[in-house]
Amino acid sequence: MATINEHYLKLKAGYLFPEISRRVHTFLETHADAPLIRLGIGDVTEPLPAACRQAMVAAIEDMSDRDRFKGYGPEQGYSWLREKIAAHDYQSRGCDIDASEIFISDGSKCDTGNILDIFGNENTIAVTDPVYPVYVDTNVMAGHTGPANDLGEYAGLVYLPITANNQFQATLPTQNVDLIYLCFPNNPTGAVATREYLQAWVTYALAHQSIIFFDAAYEAFITDPAIPHSIYEIPGARDCAIEFRSFSKNAGFTGTRCAFTVAPKSLMGMTPTPGHEAVSLWHLWQRRQSTKFNGVSYIVQRGAEAVYTPEGQAQVQGLIRFYLENARLIREELTQAGFAVYGGVNAPYVWLKTPEGLSSWDFFDELLQTCHVVGTPGSGFGAAGEGYFRISAFNSRENVTEAMQRITQCFAS
Amino acid sequence: MATINEHYLKLKAGYLFPEISRRVHTFLETHADAPLIRLGIGDVTEPLPAACRQAMVAAIEDMSDRDRFKGYGPEQGYSWLREKIAAHDYQSRGCDIDASEIFISDGSKCDTGNILDIFGNENTIAVTDPVYPVYVDTNVMAGHTGPANDLGEYAGLVYLPITANNQFQATLPTQNVDLIYLCFPNNPTGAVATREYLQAWVTYALAHQSIIFFDAAYEAFITDPAIPHSIYEIPGARDCAIEFRSFSKNAGFTGTRCAFTVAPKSLMGMTPTPGHEAVSLWHLWQRRQSTKFNGVSYIVQRGAEAVYTPEGQAQVQGLIRFYLENARLIREELTQAGFAVYGGVNAPYVWLKTPEGLSSWDFFDELLQTCHVVGTPGSGFGAAGEGYFRISAFNSRENVTEAMQRITQCFAS
Repeated sequence: MATINEHYLKLKAGYLFPEISRRVHTFLETHADAPLIRLGIGDVTEPLPAACRQAMVAAIEDMSDRDRFKGYGPEQGYSWLREKIAAHDYQSRGCDIDASEIFISDGSKCDTGNILDIFGNENTIAVTDPVYPVYVDTNVMAGHTGPANDLGEYAGLVYLPITANNQFQATLPTQNVDLIYLCFPNNPTGAVATREYLQAWVTYALAHQSIIFFDAAYEAFITDPAIPHSIYEIPGARDCAIEFRSFSKNAGFTGTRCAFTVAPKSLMGMTPTPGHEAVSLWHLWQRRQSTKFNGVSYIVQRGAEAVYTPEGQAQVQGLIRFYLENARLIREELTQAGFAVYGGVNAPYVWLKTPEGLSSWDFFDELLQTCHVVGTPGSGFGAAGEGYFRISAFNSRENVTEAMQRITQCFAS
Repeated sequence: MATINEHYLKLKAGYLFPEISRRVHTFLETHADAPLIRLGIGDVTEPLPAACRQAMVAAIEDMSDRDRFKGYGPEQGYSWLREKIAAHDYQSRGCDIDASEIFISDGSKCDTGNILDIFGNENTIAVTDPVYPVYVDTNVMAGHTGPANDLGEYAGLVYLPITANNQFQATLPTQNVDLIYLCFPNNPTGAVATREYLQAWVTYALAHQSIIFFDAAYEAFITDPAIPHSIYEIPGARDCAIEFRSFSKNAGFTGTRCAFTVAPKSLMGMTPTPGHEAVSLWHLWQRRQSTKFNGVSYIVQRGAEAVYTPEGQAQVQGLIRFYLENARLIREELTQAGFAVYGGVNAPYVWLKTPEGLSSWDFFDELLQTCHVVGTPGSGFGAAGEGYFRISAFNSRENVTEAMQRITQCFAS
């Protein structure tokens, strides 16, 4: 008799975004003509940079010629891509990261989930609250938690609240935690981390032999030169952090699929059995990827490589400026309408306090019904997100402007 | 203190193909000019079908226009691709498979590894011996085995030998097994399964409430009309089998990356706790994929869709005929040279008995040193593969002909 992984049955309702889709779908069944504007899921809307498109067309041309045809590539990704990442994203910022420490993948969602494969089941795991749901759900699926309570909090996880009360910066845990998820610029709150704040986490992790999972998917939105783009800008991070990066939000690859994980060779985990021998996490991740993954499409890797050409860089900067201007508009309009608004400066997300004490989902429904605008309820990101709401800057200027006008008309105090 | 998944430390040496790479690399260090012919890894060599290339170029053009731009797609894959698969690969053969039961992915290697996520740790697992190493290694990594013995056999797995003695058809287990990996046309032996043989497995699985993992990555090479292409051609299979398919070997997508898994909605697994409630495996896999995966590149899915156009079908058939003609040449030449040869008729792999009682790795080294031909040692696929050797038909006609001449000269008896 084949048995299932019973931990899946602990998962609460649907994953956040499918639940949003369901509610929107239900609404549209009775309001088919409603001029819906979607500022919910953080999905890009603008065309793929021309440099990336041209590189992919050329790569397809390679596939027409048996001498240039590419079959299985290295599971870790082509070195020509990894070397550009190492030079541009790390070495140019003084980070001691080599191309051999970069693993190309098809997405940070996959990587942040799959990374748990190489860790033991004994670890105490800390997440911020609110948090990107994938971090929590993949731990539930791996059996690292007990059941959830009514607030959706899973027994066994250490939740570190991030709210307006602590400026959306989690207080360092007083107890011991072994694996720590940090995301900066933050999804969903749009907060960023100073060098000093990241240094405090690195110091904690080194002292406790913990590993930080640092999700930097939104680093391209940092405009303040004082804010680190990578955890490896912090001394000591090579010995305590794995970093996740993506081409989804800088170059608009959400539908094209390319990302990467950085696992420094100096990074060690311990065997759980008495004696606690140190084992290279780079080596384990390399084994995991070469056994359970077959590399990213050659065509897509060529597209990602083009991000590092002068044209690609200029085009990516154009996209970032565009979405940041949307974020600025959202901040200003909502502030004028009387909302308490956070984030949206070095990040594509604006995080707001729901008005009149409305719950996150009630505000979601009201915004959908009255303004025909879709956002993301803060409570979908965790119990401490209740009473907050995320507005994404990923949309056209027209849609953002129109959505802000509608919200202002409905809610202006 | 972050602990690691200690099960990884049970893995024997490297994954087979990295070990081959290592030996070839070492050889080339002292024989830089050796005219090496690689018939080792089962990687395609011929250009990507023009229909697929044209469709991908058009998809890239879509990405240049914000109205046609594609961001995040459905995690399960676009319905226009799933519907064509369901109609062409299943319904046309009388298989009761719906588009909603198909999950598009970036590779069968990933899928056959990831599928274990949704199953419990209590299952008894059966693999053939020899077998595609990913099935075994992913079970080791998931903690489903004890340590390996000197032959590389892991405690806790049920090995079903497939050798010339049983015509490479595993005898059904006498004990209870819960999860069963079957691969037809077989990698590495090139054997195929008759309808009657598959029916015996389905009957076994239904009787034991087992689940069959049916890897049909090589189905396109079946030319005998009596041989099933899908397990779902067998009555009852909807209730006991998950099927894995790929565009890698039919349309040459090894470097382009697209595959799919079929999980029928009628398929159930049981909770491990007393009472044993039935849970939909489709639902668990859907949850797994929507939480840990973000879909395949839109561009690549458009390329896969083109496989189902009349031009795409003709071009794929041309590729299949080409590689099968290579396989025929390999079979004939090696037979004339005195080798005992198997497979290579409805499959792109020829499986031979090593001469003079040489071990598989000794024959590998001899072939490399004397003929400058790379193959795959049978023992790399399992203990019962010792004394066998795999030759892949994936190469140019010139290279196959040249390799056979060299082998014939060295080994002709």
